[in-house]
Amino acid sequence: MPDRPRLTPAIADTRRAVRESFAGLPADALVLVALSGGPDSLALAAATAFEAPRAGLRGGAVVIDHGLQEGSATIAAGAAETARALGLHPVEVVAVEVAARGDAAHEGPEAAARDARYAALVATARATGAAAVLLGHTLDDQAETVLLGLARGSGATSIRGMAAVSGPAVGGSGLYRRPLLGLRRASTLAACADAGLDPWTDPHNVDPAYARVRVRQSVLPVLETELGPGVAEALARTAAQAAEDADALDAMAEEVAEDVVELEEAGVSLSVSALAANPAALRQRLIRLVANSEFHVALSRTQTLEVARLVTDWHGQGPIDLPGFTAERRGGRLHLISTRAGELTGQKPPHDH
Amino acid sequence: MPDRPRLTPAIADTRRAVRESFAGLPADALVLVALSGGPDSLALAAATAFEAPRAGLRGGAVVIDHGLQEGSATIAAGAAETARALGLHPVEVVAVEVAARGDAAHEGPEAAARDARYAALVATARATGAAAVLLGHTLDDQAETVLLGLARGSGATSIRGMAAVSGPAVGGSGLYRRPLLGLRRASTLAACADAGLDPWTDPHNVDPAYARVRVRQSVLPVLETELGPGVAEALARTAAQAAEDADALDAMAEEVAEDVVELEEAGVSLSVSALAANPAALRQRLIRLVANSEFHVALSRTQTLEVARLVTDWHGQGPIDLPGFTAERRGGRLHLISTRAGELTGQKPPHDH
Repeated sequence: MPDRPRLTPAIADTRRAVRESFAGLPADALVLVALSGGPDSLALAAATAFEAPRAGLRGGAVVIDHGLQEGSATIAAGAAETARALGLHPVEVVAVEVAARGDAAHEGPEAAARDARYAALVATARATGAAAVLLGHTLDDQAETVLLGLARGSGATSIRGMAAVSGPAVGGSGLYRRPLLGLRRASTLAACADAGLDPWTDPHNVDPAYARVRVRQSVLPVLETELGPGVAEALARTAAQAAEDADALDAMAEEVAEDVVELEEAGVSLSVSALAANPAALRQRLIRLVANSEFHVALSRTQTLEVARLVTDWHGQGPIDLPGFTAERRGGRLHLISTRAGELTGQKPPHDH
Repeated sequence: MPDRPRLTPAIADTRRAVRESFAGLPADALVLVALSGGPDSLALAAATAFEAPRAGLRGGAVVIDHGLQEGSATIAAGAAETARALGLHPVEVVAVEVAARGDAAHEGPEAAARDARYAALVATARATGAAAVLLGHTLDDQAETVLLGLARGSGATSIRGMAAVSGPAVGGSGLYRRPLLGLRRASTLAACADAGLDPWTDPHNVDPAYARVRVRQSVLPVLETELGPGVAEALARTAAQAAEDADALDAMAEEVAEDVVELEEAGVSLSVSALAANPAALRQRLIRLVANSEFHVALSRTQTLEVARLVTDWHGQGPIDLPGFTAERRGGRLHLISTRAGELTGQKPPHDH
């Protein structure tokens, strides 16, 4: 690779994005680029190698070898060598074992590989004392995430996409930072080409067995063809605002819960008038929050609305049976009572059916 | 058509949906079905003819003739005849003229036809004393609306979709009701077939010149193929929750605005500390709300975030020039000052460039 690449627009964009992502990091902190060798993380590594020392930081890299493909160790070693040539230090290569867990089966191998990867990133950050791990997700990844979430349709949570900062807290901030969330994938490809870097193409990234690949190859192109360019950017903007809205309302629901929820023997009760006084967005969050914190149950929207109707559309309904608890309105209060003990519910045990 | 159709699942679903939509209407009120003769509004008309008298209401219909297609008067007369045969009364046919306005050009002929249609619906409701106008939008229409909104990407507003109740207030509620928002288009087609009703096919509904038709014919099918069935339902759920979230936060922003906004000579000022104490979702809504109410400017997300950074990322920035006003932080307050007078801004007039 050339020693000093020309400062092209794509290189300037990745560098600016990386520089801005350093906000709040202490002097001399270590930032680790999570490097796969693909165009996104390679452009990120090159930009970090340039910007970190100029910001008074140390830039390193961590390469995860998932061991899922023939020759993965060679690919990881090659990526690590590139990182060192870029001037990053330290550069760690971590081999992980991706569990073939039964409980992860419904989420597919993507989820298992992701879990293993993030665990290894946290462990490497701890071992090296890194203050941040930089991830190469781009605006295209964000748009894909939003579309995948929309297809699940579990509300604002599903379309919030990835946060610019997330993960376990380190020094008052999330460990993971995603500097490239505002850049298109085309920019990272261009930045690599402009810098004479040769990115690796992960065969998983073009395997239509993965829902994300189908979104990338079929869904987003159709959206852009039929509705015009700018769809990916529009999805990312929507995700950012949905995330802000959900964060604000989630925090308010937590605050309100402290005032309106009272503990009872086998559950909790909430004031009907307090629930009625709150807007639907908060009322339904309160119901979901209590179901989750008291009974470890994630209510669907349909279930949540059925409980809410005990407040908003009261005509003497009987108790509502839900997974793990019942909801019943009595004497101006909504009682949510556990059925896990068994004797409190009128439901027959399964073998009676 | 047969006098008494078999009660098939599709007919039962449309009737139940219509019955539930009658909630809150006073005894003997007139409900008008907005009838095009297409499958959605025809199924709606049949269900309304059946349910309205059983709910102590009167069911009528209004057919709008847009005059945009050859033979539209004949089609409108045929739809009206069907409505009368179903037992609806009164049945009004209203011919409207769709304006070829210059200012509507960027939204296309769809917007002009829609404006003319809604104006005629309001006028007919007033003339007949109707308490509600029932619209035949289905869950498929809702999913299409959400995808069209996502492609625009102006945040929660763009993905909120259509409300079950909306429009000008009549008797404390919106005039328009959309009973079929929870039903798939396939159900209305089946309900028509089951009742021996022969719906009209609007050629506009298959004309790919319309973005909505492209969403229907290309985008949604690809989403369902690549991400599995249930995508339309998922989009509708997301829209419903996004609408609730936006409603709650919009109302809170209005409340907070009363406390933090102070009038100034050529604009307003807001307390920086109050803005900082609010979550991003409210802070940005406050900025947009003030820009809109004081200067009649709809700020983009990018512009809104630039103003917000005067609060969240303060490092002595100078005034920000925006359309119609400037935003500047001075002495613990954010000053938004009109530039419409001309002499207050440093911007050169266009002819100087």
